[in-house]
Amino acid sequence: MQRSPIKHCRECGTTVHYRLPDDGDTKLRAICPACHTVHYENPLNVVGTVPYLGNQVLLCKRNIEPRRGKWTLPAGFMELGESTSEGAARETAEEAGAQFIMEDLLTVMSVPRVGQVHLYYRARLTSDVFDPGHETMEARLFYEDEIPWDELAFRTVKETLEHYFADRRLGRFATHAFDIA
Amino acid sequence: MQRSPIKHCRECGTTVHYRLPDDGDTKLRAICPACHTVHYENPLNVVGTVPYLGNQVLLCKRNIEPRRGKWTLPAGFMELGESTSEGAARETAEEAGAQFIMEDLLTVMSVPRVGQVHLYYRARLTSDVFDPGHETMEARLFYEDEIPWDELAFRTVKETLEHYFADRRLGRFATHAFDIA
Repeated sequence: MQRSPIKHCRECGTTVHYRLPDDGDTKLRAICPACHTVHYENPLNVVGTVPYLGNQVLLCKRNIEPRRGKWTLPAGFMELGESTSEGAARETAEEAGAQFIMEDLLTVMSVPRVGQVHLYYRARLTSDVFDPGHETMEARLFYEDEIPWDELAFRTVKETLEHYFADRRLGRFATHAFDIA
Repeated sequence: MQRSPIKHCRECGTTVHYRLPDDGDTKLRAICPACHTVHYENPLNVVGTVPYLGNQVLLCKRNIEPRRGKWTLPAGFMELGESTSEGAARETAEEAGAQFIMEDLLTVMSVPRVGQVHLYYRARLTSDVFDPGHETMEARLFYEDEIPWDELAFRTVKETLEHYFADRRLGRFATHAFDIA
């Protein structure tokens, strides 16, 4: 799960204990013995886009860990106060400095091993000029036969690109929801 | 957002301050002045199903707040260690005690006002006998013209049922992704 256990209560700072709550809940939760706050931990959403221009898609070379130097689609953790598509647009602006119009949801991928759900939208680029942020070494367009399949940062990126090109060949885009073990 | 601010560090219990982190992040985060842990808060996923049997769908009368006594589709917070569809199946078993086969993703609805994303799958019931848990007063099947539209617990439930019946009339189900202001 790659999450460190909660040690202290967010309300009062007391050391918590992991135990079953008294309300019928069947999962162990970090519970404060002083103020009785129950702390829940839940999966995180990662939101991003497949930015495309004609027959090309935009990839970003990562300038941060994990997978520094590998290629990825622009994506990042969804924030409070935004929708999935607003978060995907924000990450695309931040990581690629791209100009684009958001389109439909392409993939919804659960990755329970790391407690994440990844959602990617298609985004139609309106310019081929990019101004990537500090998280990106380089942003450039690739034709399908140029995609560095062995140098992609994440399995979710590979799956999303495969669905994008497959749907494109079919001439019809759908939303693909599946789990990644 | 309906979240109370973090007061204490989960690692060491020290009182946190909300400020901009030093890593280029542009959002205020709860940061520990003692151990420097940055605490992130992110949207939560609510996962559920539209359980159907022939031309009927299953609704549950809520036995818990909020909206006690109102009708809902079985749904709840996604947990660590499960996928969206596994969470939706778990909630359907817990809240309705139904037997069913999971089908495709029907709706993905962002509700930024409350920091949530709601995802509903279709689920084909294999029995008309239900054994609802303590969160449900009553679980029963409704034909479309019997749905208590004015007694539904949540806007996301109404939108999901509307898409279910509209797609059913079309004879073709799709995944519908949209935001609820």
